[in-house]
Amino acid sequence: MSEAPAGGLEIARLSTSDVDFEARLDALLAWEGVSDHEVQRRVADILEAVKTRGDAAVVEASNRFDRLSASNMAELTLGPDRLREAFEGLPEAQREALATAAERVRRYHEHQKPETWSYTEADGTVLGQQVTPLDRAGIYVPGGKAAYPSSVLMNALPAHVAGVGEIVMVVPTPDGVLNELVLAAAHLAGVDHVFTIGGAQAVAALAYGTETVPRVDKIVGPGNIYVATAKRAVFGQVGIDMIAGPSEILVVSDGGTDPDWLAMDLFSQAEHDEDAQSILVSWDDAHLEAVAESMARQLPTMEREAIIRTSLSERGALIRCRDRGEAVALLNRIAPEHLELSVADPEAWLPEVRHAGAVFMGRYTAEALGDYCAGPNHVLPTSGTARFSSPLGVYDFQKRSSLIGCSAEGASALGRTASVLARGESLTAHARSAEYRIRD
Amino acid sequence: MSEAPAGGLEIARLSTSDVDFEARLDALLAWEGVSDHEVQRRVADILEAVKTRGDAAVVEASNRFDRLSASNMAELTLGPDRLREAFEGLPEAQREALATAAERVRRYHEHQKPETWSYTEADGTVLGQQVTPLDRAGIYVPGGKAAYPSSVLMNALPAHVAGVGEIVMVVPTPDGVLNELVLAAAHLAGVDHVFTIGGAQAVAALAYGTETVPRVDKIVGPGNIYVATAKRAVFGQVGIDMIAGPSEILVVSDGGTDPDWLAMDLFSQAEHDEDAQSILVSWDDAHLEAVAESMARQLPTMEREAIIRTSLSERGALIRCRDRGEAVALLNRIAPEHLELSVADPEAWLPEVRHAGAVFMGRYTAEALGDYCAGPNHVLPTSGTARFSSPLGVYDFQKRSSLIGCSAEGASALGRTASVLARGESLTAHARSAEYRIRD
Repeated sequence: MSEAPAGGLEIARLSTSDVDFEARLDALLAWEGVSDHEVQRRVADILEAVKTRGDAAVVEASNRFDRLSASNMAELTLGPDRLREAFEGLPEAQREALATAAERVRRYHEHQKPETWSYTEADGTVLGQQVTPLDRAGIYVPGGKAAYPSSVLMNALPAHVAGVGEIVMVVPTPDGVLNELVLAAAHLAGVDHVFTIGGAQAVAALAYGTETVPRVDKIVGPGNIYVATAKRAVFGQVGIDMIAGPSEILVVSDGGTDPDWLAMDLFSQAEHDEDAQSILVSWDDAHLEAVAESMARQLPTMEREAIIRTSLSERGALIRCRDRGEAVALLNRIAPEHLELSVADPEAWLPEVRHAGAVFMGRYTAEALGDYCAGPNHVLPTSGTARFSSPLGVYDFQKRSSLIGCSAEGASALGRTASVLARGESLTAHARSAEYRIRD
Repeated sequence: MSEAPAGGLEIARLSTSDVDFEARLDALLAWEGVSDHEVQRRVADILEAVKTRGDAAVVEASNRFDRLSASNMAELTLGPDRLREAFEGLPEAQREALATAAERVRRYHEHQKPETWSYTEADGTVLGQQVTPLDRAGIYVPGGKAAYPSSVLMNALPAHVAGVGEIVMVVPTPDGVLNELVLAAAHLAGVDHVFTIGGAQAVAALAYGTETVPRVDKIVGPGNIYVATAKRAVFGQVGIDMIAGPSEILVVSDGGTDPDWLAMDLFSQAEHDEDAQSILVSWDDAHLEAVAESMARQLPTMEREAIIRTSLSERGALIRCRDRGEAVALLNRIAPEHLELSVADPEAWLPEVRHAGAVFMGRYTAEALGDYCAGPNHVLPTSGTARFSSPLGVYDFQKRSSLIGCSAEGASALGRTASVLARGESLTAHARSAEYRIRD
């Protein structure tokens, strides 16, 4: 099939019956976050500077990259009072919407708390796992055009629900511009401190600690290539969440959803940025055509028309498949961040959905509802990483410790087995340590 | 206090009352896995070669680094029959010990399976999370002196319990030497294929796939600096577990445990390699002295005396603290991989243990029992990373998908909130997508 514009809309048209379908799909899905040697070198320099010179290096880098003129970290620090002021200063509608979203997100995440467990064996040996929260978490919030209050809620609330002792947020303020909604969200989400710093210098400050910024145990939140490179570099020193790629949606439609709704759902993904990806799959030709027409018609009315247009023409696609079975195979192959099952009986599809960050079920469940306030997290695995990773959750801010308590009898029995295996590995101190606990 | 030898034993002696205690403890715990530019460059070259030339590059690298003369991947592949043969060929005692260990590890890990859950709100909206296993997991098993059958069980069994579709194991065979116990463990643990390859080339093969090696979704298992560097590089392309540092134990003793037992427990950690770390903490001076004397006495009887001696003198320590409270503070500060609570009432300590990979409770619970057969995993967070990470577990081989199914009524209510928030973020396609679902 061709990529011919549909009434002014440029978007790839694929069919699973095309001979080159696999190759075209591969090309469409290909994404590699480019971190060249130059970026790595610059990030390494910043990390080293912050590690050795602390606050001074953070202030210098912030002044330079965010065009500020701060003389110390105190000027780049916001306390809880400032966050509360931001919340109280919002128009009522925004204040209420933010509070509603926070409450729903909190409630959903309460369901995610893993429990400490243990069991006792016949000989009295106790085995289990103890779950504890992190002492301190760092939330990276991008500045500028991608400063989203909803992201503050989605990153900080799971940490709060997990029982994290202290939540530290960093958000750059290019040219000194503060986003009041972001600060208000931080207030609602239980953030303890905010530092108005960003980039690799903020990641370094959180990972190593400075005179002012406390060292955290894990850093979460999206950022540009410098932030992603810095996070990858400090991984191990601290925990990190996934390195996020561009946002994507895969809509599977059975033809029964209003084409205008679906067009707007695809736009909502495409408007994020030029790299965002919107794909629609259906086995209904006329329906695909109707959605394409609606997109062409509605596109000129969009505020972010230019971004949407680029995103759709460079990374979007309408894919015709043969039937429901092929749609299932496709969605598992793509492992999308967002999967909209715009079909009559989405529950029936679930057992076959192996890989997806979030599943939006049915015609009413627009992804946008999940982005803001349905409850589940909007920080989701991108670029096919739903094959092996999960939405950000309470479990990301907790960790487990194995518990092993052997009774005298249990130690004696286990000691015999351990001794044989340890000697098989030529680890005789292991063997003798176990043998000391054998009776008789 | 001094580092004076105690009867031929060199080991650091620290006291929390020393004025330089904090600095000395920092120095003792400092560990940085060195991956210099040269290593990174060589790893990058190998990754690129395998990505572009597949099997041929893997065979070349294996011949070169493991001193083999394979002409194709078939010669580096072992099927299930070969694994079963290895198991059946073991002496009975080893076969039974391995089977006992495998059964206990499997049983423990069955308790770790997270469940799919959902709840329905008053307006019919359904929210939840669906848990699914990975399609394919890759297990890296080191070759040479660190080829441990117990590690095969500990890495592969959680994947098996998780329901992973296919488990692929790689293990280098330097100079062509196969370890029958390792193959036998693979048989017991449900490994599907074994490739006798290692190093960065094995990581690359698993991450990208080749003509012969299937691409996996996650790579777990320890390796040398080339393996660790390669894993860090492919992280994002595939999932990885933690980058492991040297193994460590922290024993806290109340003075009531036989000094000979504790000396051997400390040796069992130290015998792993020269970088391993064994630390004993107690508030009982005479007891610390008794353990030191026992170590000096028993050391000459150890097969791995030289390794233990180096490890203890370079990274070991006997630490005197004031009381139980200081011991708790220390253990949380150190966040050890293995924590032996060799005390009268270890359960009473648990609520205060915030950070530890595994807790071995009471005088009978030698770490060696947990290393082999108690049930919990022996792949644990090292170098203080227990602050933010967990033992390898079933949860590492599963992932979650958020579920959101809005009723018409629910979508209408949520749409109002989402619309306000989306417009606050200037994302009008998001707002309009939500507004389409508002009634009236």
